[in-house]
Amino acid sequence: MKNLTSEILTVINKRPVDSFKGNYGHIVTVGGTKQYGGAILMSTSAAVHAGAGLVTCATAPENLTALHAVVPEAMFVDFTDERTVNSVLAGADAIVIGPGLGTDQTSLSIIRSVFANVKPEQYLIIDGSAITLLAQEKELQDNLPDTHIIFTPHEMEWQRLSGIKIADQSEENNRQKQEKLGATVVLKKHHTEIYSPKQETTRLPIGGPYMSTGGMGDTLTGIIAAFMGQFASEDPKAALDAALYTHSAIADQLAKNAYVVLPTDIIDQLQRFMKENSK
Amino acid sequence: MKNLTSEILTVINKRPVDSFKGNYGHIVTVGGTKQYGGAILMSTSAAVHAGAGLVTCATAPENLTALHAVVPEAMFVDFTDERTVNSVLAGADAIVIGPGLGTDQTSLSIIRSVFANVKPEQYLIIDGSAITLLAQEKELQDNLPDTHIIFTPHEMEWQRLSGIKIADQSEENNRQKQEKLGATVVLKKHHTEIYSPKQETTRLPIGGPYMSTGGMGDTLTGIIAAFMGQFASEDPKAALDAALYTHSAIADQLAKNAYVVLPTDIIDQLQRFMKENSK
Amino acid sequence: MKNLTSEILTVINKRPVDSFKGNYGHIVTVGGTKQYGGAILMSTSAAVHAGAGLVTCATAPENLTALHAVVPEAMFVDFTDERTVNSVLAGADAIVIGPGLGTDQTSLSIIRSVFANVKPEQYLIIDGSAITLLAQEKELQDNLPDTHIIFTPHEMEWQRLSGIKIADQSEENNRQKQEKLGATVVLKKHHTEIYSPKQETTRLPIGGPYMSTGGMGDTLTGIIAAFMGQFASEDPKAALDAALYTHSAIADQLAKNAYVVLPTDIIDQLQRFMKENSK
Amino acid sequence: MKNLTSEILTVINKRPVDSFKGNYGHIVTVGGTKQYGGAILMSTSAAVHAGAGLVTCATAPENLTALHAVVPEAMFVDFTDERTVNSVLAGADAIVIGPGLGTDQTSLSIIRSVFANVKPEQYLIIDGSAITLLAQEKELQDNLPDTHIIFTPHEMEWQRLSGIKIADQSEENNRQKQEKLGATVVLKKHHTEIYSPKQETTRLPIGGPYMSTGGMGDTLTGIIAAFMGQFASEDPKAALDAALYTHSAIADQLAKNAYVVLPTDIIDQLQRFMKENSK
Repeated sequence: MKNLTSEILTVINKRPVDSFKGNYGHIVTVGGTKQYGGAILMSTSAAVHAGAGLVTCATAPENLTALHAVVPEAMFVDFTDERTVNSVLAGADAIVIGPGLGTDQTSLSIIRSVFANVKPEQYLIIDGSAITLLAQEKELQDNLPDTHIIFTPHEMEWQRLSGIKIADQSEENNRQKQEKLGATVVLKKHHTEIYSPKQETTRLPIGGPYMSTGGMGDTLTGIIAAFMGQFASEDPKAALDAALYTHSAIADQLAKNAYVVLPTDIIDQLQRFMKENSK
Repeated sequence: MKNLTSEILTVINKRPVDSFKGNYGHIVTVGGTKQYGGAILMSTSAAVHAGAGLVTCATAPENLTALHAVVPEAMFVDFTDERTVNSVLAGADAIVIGPGLGTDQTSLSIIRSVFANVKPEQYLIIDGSAITLLAQEKELQDNLPDTHIIFTPHEMEWQRLSGIKIADQSEENNRQKQEKLGATVVLKKHHTEIYSPKQETTRLPIGGPYMSTGGMGDTLTGIIAAFMGQFASEDPKAALDAALYTHSAIADQLAKNAYVVLPTDIIDQLQRFMKENSK
Repeated sequence: MKNLTSEILTVINKRPVDSFKGNYGHIVTVGGTKQYGGAILMSTSAAVHAGAGLVTCATAPENLTALHAVVPEAMFVDFTDERTVNSVLAGADAIVIGPGLGTDQTSLSIIRSVFANVKPEQYLIIDGSAITLLAQEKELQDNLPDTHIIFTPHEMEWQRLSGIKIADQSEENNRQKQEKLGATVVLKKHHTEIYSPKQETTRLPIGGPYMSTGGMGDTLTGIIAAFMGQFASEDPKAALDAALYTHSAIADQLAKNAYVVLPTDIIDQLQRFMKENSK
Repeated sequence: MKNLTSEILTVINKRPVDSFKGNYGHIVTVGGTKQYGGAILMSTSAAVHAGAGLVTCATAPENLTALHAVVPEAMFVDFTDERTVNSVLAGADAIVIGPGLGTDQTSLSIIRSVFANVKPEQYLIIDGSAITLLAQEKELQDNLPDTHIIFTPHEMEWQRLSGIKIADQSEENNRQKQEKLGATVVLKKHHTEIYSPKQETTRLPIGGPYMSTGGMGDTLTGIIAAFMGQFASEDPKAALDAALYTHSAIADQLAKNAYVVLPTDIIDQLQRFMKENSK
């Protein structure tokens, strides 16, 4: 297992002078019931601040106003409006599904619909409730769509999804299950581990307990999506690793002056951090 | 009566490296009618900024959007949806009831439901309208739930609850009533007094009249809840005292440059203050 | 006519150590249709930031969420709910009516209701649409309630209310009409003039064209209300003059670095400015 | 084609001392379906921050609350309420139509109504969806209203509107089509070009790829409208050029510390930038 260093941030390219927003990815974030609306707002806002060209948030209609107030740069779709969601998904470079999605029948039918519509060249980040739902619905888990899937479970979610108890989550066991899934797995924990198909496992040696607060993982999904939309064409594994490194490195910086680092604080630092570390 | 000093802030521990959000408490805040929605938003936001691992706000449905816009880190529950509220309460470490709750029949039935569901190991902070309702409903007051209760009345609310006129609120009289209630009483006033079962009364020698503004007490409840969720396991009395000290010490700092200190200003300083004073 | 100087700011007292929010006034702001909701939000927010102890905003129900999101410190009442509005008015020290109130039948009935309920010891600031309505409804104008009324018209509104054409708005003519109204008149213009019953006319020699932007007058009403609630007991005329001086002096400071000064920018500076100028 | 320099910013006048908000233009922004509400919020907020005297936003009713929360200085009209929209349009100095307007039947009928009501002395900025709709509806395009029209297409929108393929968008070809339209055309691209009737083509040599993010063009429309409302009386071409220069120059400044520049970041800098560059 290889420890990541700040070297990974070289994937944050200087943008070519003659380019337009279409070059920087269209991200679609799917999640946010009425109860958990904040989760998808943070994912969406993180994607916008991390440089995505266009971001659309597919969420419960109750979250429309909060979305426009918090991040007017993002567009809205009612996540129960299957037709419009599908037309938006068709143009996506990266899709996030799960933050605050819930685990009821509506959530399940939304996942099914996204799975049925995702295309091979897209990146699909599966987080939070979506992981829990997959763990419950073996049939869904056995029929993952043919695309670039990135799971972002924490240890308990990984136990649910993989069947591997937390105490048994060794590199070898994790790797076996990851290969069976045919997907990338970001195992979030103290020193997060990243298992990508046919690549050496990487580990994040940074981050800390000041990140243990609700919404931290939701925010990560937006950063990952934005990085895949902008930087994946050359080396997708490096783009993913850089997204994770960015998320924790900002938290480490903020923790010098903050007892707990809030997700929205990290979002506020993305533009500066990426500039300072762009090559 | 013992004056608190900044020594009390040593309860703000350095977090262990290998920990997750479940270690820092799940807080549930209950309150906020349509008319007084801001009160519960401030309590909730304070809990998030003071480091609580997870925060759920049970409030009137009209407050959903303002909650997600102001503090996307928090989760929402409709406070009239008894079933969902109860399932959320079951996982709570500390519960706040009262900020902006109102005093009508709905408010009363919400209190009854919370009282019926609270568990012995949980902390229950009772504030504002909830205190007024308890003062009116002797039967409720005589059947307080068997848990760690913290009342946070100002002098007039304490008069209503205890029957002790403001002029007669001596340490001895207050202590007698507190013992009868079997609960902790935080008597908010110029130099707030804290009466905890079987412990020496403590007094807050800091704070000032720049704190005399609507919402200041609501914000305090969120800080108390977050501190109980994080720091109470070793010494609950010290955790409570530290929450009160933090609230007023931040106000004192801000008052050097502000004629009046707003609750939302205090919330903005929690992360920095706690970092500077963590051991 | 006497030019005001920064001397007037001495009315911003140091607060007595042992005091509570009830000492600093309960302000009620009335206005804000769906179309003009921002106006009453700015008035309300200004009152909160200028130190009012409690602030309630009586406005169209559509503005509930924006109010709680922008200024959670304030309370809400539906301005068509006459019963609740009246109970809130009963406890007010100062009332603002007019910002964004509109001029339709609903607006008119709200004004009538406020006029019928206001008490002699209260301050009533009449602004914007409310002035226009009074100008139209002579019967209302001839039956002003018996209380401390402060009109805050700009020149065109004063023309409508007083019948004095802008070109003829001399001190003598204005004074005559002001005496007939039996109210204070703040005539907003380049170098605003303040006509109070039986007192020398004062003039504001500060302020500038960077203040010519929508919402500037709405914000002023909140500052006036907060100042009357806190500082009027000794010298109401001085409290009013100080409110006006504060509003423009902040704008002058901000204009050093801003082409146009927005109302919300002024609100953000109130706490600092009042601290620096408190005695 | 002439490159613009910072010399163009001399159109940002020092405001005359004795003036009022009516002197600085009433702007009406029209757009923002439920799905694309953020777009019109950014246009509106940009107009407010760029110094417009009064700004009204005609948008979908769902956007009311987000508008008041984000920019309380602006007024609201339901864009399907033709009668009220028309009464507001009658008092406008500059009108923006298009940001987030969508391309359905409602959008089309709103455009028709605006076109039918616009007056010769007004400025009409046509952007985004409105350009796409005009490209589809030849009949509308052939019957442009008799007023000062400013189109703000990016290259693909210009291809749709003009029929000129991106590769063929030479100065000569663009100029021909612009003359046929009888309108000003701002062709947004790396080094934006501005074609005004009977004037030398100007080019913006500043700006960069950090501006390639959703909402950047929406924000530009608000700045253009505010500049036309304030500075067009002497030299409308210079006012337009200065608006464009301001938008990109702020982005260039921010890009020194930000990997991507968000539209809302530009809005926050308008007051400072205009002050520093006012003569």
